[in-house]
Amino acid sequence: MTVVEAVRWSGGGDAVDIIDQRQLPNELVRRELRTVDDVCDAILTLSVRGAPAIGIAGAMGLVVALSRLTEDTREHFIGAVESLCDRIGAVRPTAVNLPWAMERMCRTARITPGQPDVILEVLRAEATKILEEDRAMCRRIGEHGLELLPETASILTHCNAGALATGGIGTALAPIYVAKEQGRRVHVFADETRPLLQGSRLTAWELTQAGIDVTVLADGMAASLMRGGAVDLVIVGADRIAANGDVANKIGTYALALAARHHNIPFYVAAPTSTVDPATATGCDIAIEHRDGDELREWNGMSMMPEKASVYNPAFDITPAELITAIITDEGIVRPPYAFVASGNPGGVGG
Amino acid sequence: MTVVEAVRWSGGGDAVDIIDQRQLPNELVRRELRTVDDVCDAILTLSVRGAPAIGIAGAMGLVVALSRLTEDTREHFIGAVESLCDRIGAVRPTAVNLPWAMERMCRTARITPGQPDVILEVLRAEATKILEEDRAMCRRIGEHGLELLPETASILTHCNAGALATGGIGTALAPIYVAKEQGRRVHVFADETRPLLQGSRLTAWELTQAGIDVTVLADGMAASLMRGGAVDLVIVGADRIAANGDVANKIGTYALALAARHHNIPFYVAAPTSTVDPATATGCDIAIEHRDGDELREWNGMSMMPEKASVYNPAFDITPAELITAIITDEGIVRPPYAFVASGNPGGVGG
Repeated sequence: MTVVEAVRWSGGGDAVDIIDQRQLPNELVRRELRTVDDVCDAILTLSVRGAPAIGIAGAMGLVVALSRLTEDTREHFIGAVESLCDRIGAVRPTAVNLPWAMERMCRTARITPGQPDVILEVLRAEATKILEEDRAMCRRIGEHGLELLPETASILTHCNAGALATGGIGTALAPIYVAKEQGRRVHVFADETRPLLQGSRLTAWELTQAGIDVTVLADGMAASLMRGGAVDLVIVGADRIAANGDVANKIGTYALALAARHHNIPFYVAAPTSTVDPATATGCDIAIEHRDGDELREWNGMSMMPEKASVYNPAFDITPAELITAIITDEGIVRPPYAFVASGNPGGVGG
Repeated sequence: MTVVEAVRWSGGGDAVDIIDQRQLPNELVRRELRTVDDVCDAILTLSVRGAPAIGIAGAMGLVVALSRLTEDTREHFIGAVESLCDRIGAVRPTAVNLPWAMERMCRTARITPGQPDVILEVLRAEATKILEEDRAMCRRIGEHGLELLPETASILTHCNAGALATGGIGTALAPIYVAKEQGRRVHVFADETRPLLQGSRLTAWELTQAGIDVTVLADGMAASLMRGGAVDLVIVGADRIAANGDVANKIGTYALALAARHHNIPFYVAAPTSTVDPATATGCDIAIEHRDGDELREWNGMSMMPEKASVYNPAFDITPAELITAIITDEGIVRPPYAFVASGNPGGVGG
């Protein structure tokens, strides 16, 4: 089974090699990022996307940018690290992982004694560690999630919470990859996920690369698919999880959760424990980003609606905890009642 | 208030004037149909669409085509009527209105005594009658539906069941037009309606032409819009209504009905009584057309998903009667329990 790698080292650590996700599904184009401009541009233009993948690309990109500097004193080098971290971290500040990764790299530089060449190698190891930690986290989510899948499983998912969004086998797609690895039969239904079509463009692409059967449907078709009995369970990712278990995820998730509940189909959220924000009491406390109406208004520059019409285009919606059968984390499966505590670890993590 | 006319006579009855809906919303292009080829092409290419509008265009198109014939005996003329009716009626046989209108025109020709010039004028009057009957039916749906709207109403709709689909002010949109006429404040939320975008391209266009505020959203956003309290009621059209009140309508309708029920929002279906098929016991007896996967796969010829992915693309779904608050017909508002009887008129029609 081939699982695509969204972000990896290339040239012996001389560059960051990413899949240019803007070209998918029509072309598999890999880009080598060598300078801070390359890194910022790749993140800004969504060549690399998905909160974990952006954090990883930022940390690795910092290292390749630093390796081209000629600062010869520790003081100048640390100054360069700080300024580059600020610059990269500001490209997409709303995704928590990118500022988090840049802050971690910055802190590592400051506490590492020695000269620039030594600090650079420590930072390289730290970036690799961020990638490896994410990869291991995905794997654990996949292994925990596997026990929720029947022997032959038909799984509906939304948006892309897969390998393209992480350093490993994804979050929502992780149990699917693990099932496939173990020779189980899995069939995935992927919502196309309007407006940006991450489901048809990205999820369908990475699953077919791994030889997994996938059927794409429009978002409004999922309820009738469930009514017809074709869906065993739903697994989606999460952008943020509140202390009470309410989940913010890609717009369209809530409608799926309602339909799943009506048809008594299990509805699972898969996410690392770091997605849980115990400081956020409930979904009501999560501010929802509203994006440019042109995402719905236009297609390849061609207008799809009259100018005078307004557009409603929230990027996320909130699925209340009572609709969520369980949350699959890297630390185990969490079942209701959800009560995540400030340790950052989910309360009541079990088998 | 300007309500667009999808189909009308032009040139003193010498041609059928239609809006070429393929060009919307970017250009308002009207086409004059003068020959049977023009008529068949317009219906086949969806220049004119919506079951009632197609029936009307077929009947009127028959008349303009016949007016160009030189058959000089009654026998030859009736033969030409029958052959043209067969040809036009076969262009889109699944929509019931087109074969129904062509059969009605054919029967009228046969029972009309006299020579070709006399029969032609009777057929012209019959086609006008089909148009006028549809227009009156829409108006009555609008007037009956009005009583379900609060003074200031926020209404969610799906697909296009408006003026562009009928000879009048539509079905689902009819109560909205009547409310606007009476100076009430109405705001419409229009699902874009994947895959063919009839909501953003057509519903939003015709409503803005009438000066009605409209906001377009992706289909998967409707549930979160309802959760936020922005929707007072939902009105959709229907392609077929079973005897027990189950409704076949554009794919995506069922998901809306589930979300409306969860949020205690009234969910109305607006349709002429002719849409009721008492011979169909329940929604299970309605065959669902599955359309070409390319509707989801491609956009302006550009591929949006990997070739190896399959596509699920049903044109309609079934909304069970228990989710429908009431059915707004031209004969009145029908409330559950629904029990439509073979007269073709809904049982229990009330205020």
